[in-house]
Amino acid sequence: MTYAYFDHNATTGVDDAVLEAMMPYFQNDFGNPSSRHAPGRTARLAVDLAREQVADSVGVQPSQVIFTSGGSEANNLFIQGAAGYLKPTCIVVSSIEHPCVMRTAQDLARGRDRGWNLRRLDVDKLGLVDTEDVDRAILEEQPGLVSIMLANNETGVIQDVAAIAEKFRVRGAWVHTDAVQALGKIQVDFSSLRVHAMTISGHKIYGPKGAAALIIDKRLLLKPLIHGGGHEHGMRSGTENVPAIVGFGVACGLAKKRMAEMAARISEIHGRLEQGLLEMGAVIFGLGASRLPNTCYFALPGIEGDTLVVRLDKAGFAVASGAACSSVNPGRSHVLEAMGVEPDLARCAVRVSLGNSNSPAQVESFIHAVSSVAQELRRMNSVTV
Amino acid sequence: MTYAYFDHNATTGVDDAVLEAMMPYFQNDFGNPSSRHAPGRTARLAVDLAREQVADSVGVQPSQVIFTSGGSEANNLFIQGAAGYLKPTCIVVSSIEHPCVMRTAQDLARGRDRGWNLRRLDVDKLGLVDTEDVDRAILEEQPGLVSIMLANNETGVIQDVAAIAEKFRVRGAWVHTDAVQALGKIQVDFSSLRVHAMTISGHKIYGPKGAAALIIDKRLLLKPLIHGGGHEHGMRSGTENVPAIVGFGVACGLAKKRMAEMAARISEIHGRLEQGLLEMGAVIFGLGASRLPNTCYFALPGIEGDTLVVRLDKAGFAVASGAACSSVNPGRSHVLEAMGVEPDLARCAVRVSLGNSNSPAQVESFIHAVSSVAQELRRMNSVTV
Repeated sequence: MTYAYFDHNATTGVDDAVLEAMMPYFQNDFGNPSSRHAPGRTARLAVDLAREQVADSVGVQPSQVIFTSGGSEANNLFIQGAAGYLKPTCIVVSSIEHPCVMRTAQDLARGRDRGWNLRRLDVDKLGLVDTEDVDRAILEEQPGLVSIMLANNETGVIQDVAAIAEKFRVRGAWVHTDAVQALGKIQVDFSSLRVHAMTISGHKIYGPKGAAALIIDKRLLLKPLIHGGGHEHGMRSGTENVPAIVGFGVACGLAKKRMAEMAARISEIHGRLEQGLLEMGAVIFGLGASRLPNTCYFALPGIEGDTLVVRLDKAGFAVASGAACSSVNPGRSHVLEAMGVEPDLARCAVRVSLGNSNSPAQVESFIHAVSSVAQELRRMNSVTV
Repeated sequence: MTYAYFDHNATTGVDDAVLEAMMPYFQNDFGNPSSRHAPGRTARLAVDLAREQVADSVGVQPSQVIFTSGGSEANNLFIQGAAGYLKPTCIVVSSIEHPCVMRTAQDLARGRDRGWNLRRLDVDKLGLVDTEDVDRAILEEQPGLVSIMLANNETGVIQDVAAIAEKFRVRGAWVHTDAVQALGKIQVDFSSLRVHAMTISGHKIYGPKGAAALIIDKRLLLKPLIHGGGHEHGMRSGTENVPAIVGFGVACGLAKKRMAEMAARISEIHGRLEQGLLEMGAVIFGLGASRLPNTCYFALPGIEGDTLVVRLDKAGFAVASGAACSSVNPGRSHVLEAMGVEPDLARCAVRVSLGNSNSPAQVESFIHAVSSVAQELRRMNSVTV
């Protein structure tokens, strides 16, 4: 059976060029970049080059890149790190942030003596941050830290981060965006987004797991999460994961180079996918909003998402129900809840996220498979009821 | 020119068997372990197997293993994580801990409202923790957290962690050991060490960079450093670095299997190395204490360590001056300072750390190279003076 991977928002396979670039650093040039001898210097040069590649892909200077082990760490570093140097005020996040932003913000506000309070911004039915609620938050709160994701991992809905950031900047807040899902799929330019910090990650863009970055405005002071030898300008200690960082650098370069072509190609099969699903009576979440070209988050009313995922897996298609990154904690999607989707419909949610290996033929087979599985499940339901 | 790598305490190259085990997880089985579909389940099984291998290598249950991105993160997780659930008392560390323990403890004690104080235990001239100072600390302080490294990265001196831990346990403290340098070189058994937590790391044992573990007594509660999707029993969120974790598991298995044979083989060339250095008039730090079989930390009086490292690098030998992991912050070795070594001699310190690729012939050439470089440098000194 051929198997089609339609879960690129959860993770991606490593690109050939990325793996090729990584390989020398496992066994030949395996030095510790902090060492002064030749193997150490070779490793340091490799990390420096990767830092340039990452910086270039989002339009910043290499010194603005702090390498971390992943997107979750980078998001935590922004929130906890910036809070470590600020007078406690209010942390503002959208109500559809990834758990690594939401729970970090919640933890900050929970700290007994810390004095932070948390303000969650409403989103509308399309999953867009409610600009009126932004204005209310600015009036009612004293915003010190803000984190608004660029593209949502479940719906793919893209926020107008620049406009939101501009409003909070005027109030003196430090603004961050989690751009992990956006990079490689849409244009991501740090300065255009008007933020002070941004998270990007390797394994969402055909790079390796284990390397990500927090991109920072250099005026931002961050208390490190991980203390130690003083790596990454003292903001993230620990021996650099050289092969992963090298791979991340190459992946960022490829993402920039291929973005336009990829987006065009994937948009086309994405259009066909959504047409097919709509014809089947599917509800597509965020339809009408500006979305990532690869993401389709849909529900077939009456067909439970979890069941559909399992049946499609057996039929040779990898898709996700809810957010894969937190499916260790199954439950209702907080994103759909925030969008006001009825629980009965939210339970039917399934996410398809296309990537560079997907073909029109795979999408045609997928539409066919969804249709027959749905028919079968509906028949079973009508028998048991 | 052949180049001999003598800096295995800084980092090691990835073993063939380790790399072979990792390879499938970059491009074929690249799924996110949190996904429920087939690629996700394959990745989950791989992480589960690695967890068993890691656990088995140090005599614990798989559920006692928390994977992290590195040793620095694991050490931070113990200190910050345990402090997050405890009433502030005293944190006790040896004065020769790695910066990722020392600075984390210092940061904890610096926290304005946190109420922790820091007690550094003295070491003797050999670099062994002073047992009388342990007794004093227990009398004078209220120890809540303790961290004592098993083997020192610079000297290789091995502490009697079990005896020290037992004393602090009686006082109700949570005791941790950083065993990063010990694993694979000496027997490391979690329960025999009588600690509640222990750090081990992949890249010091011919595994990949990017995977390490905090091994815990399951009664220990840890507040996560990285909040998010709730991975690693809620104690470390973030998509698992599957290839690195797989490699770490295999490396732990190999370390256990090969330890006795490796230690015997390396002890022999280590003996020859130290004999040669002593004949040259070298001072060997920690000589007389129980040390790692691979580590030789020496000084040739009057020959600056940094200079010797650079000259030996040109001659084809990778060695370290001071601790490689913090040579981004050059300066005096805090380890030698704690041992009461005179600054003039401490500046001459050079570390050789042998590993599985080193041969008797390499050691002979090294002794010869050190001797001729030293003679040359002494000649230059006498000319300039």
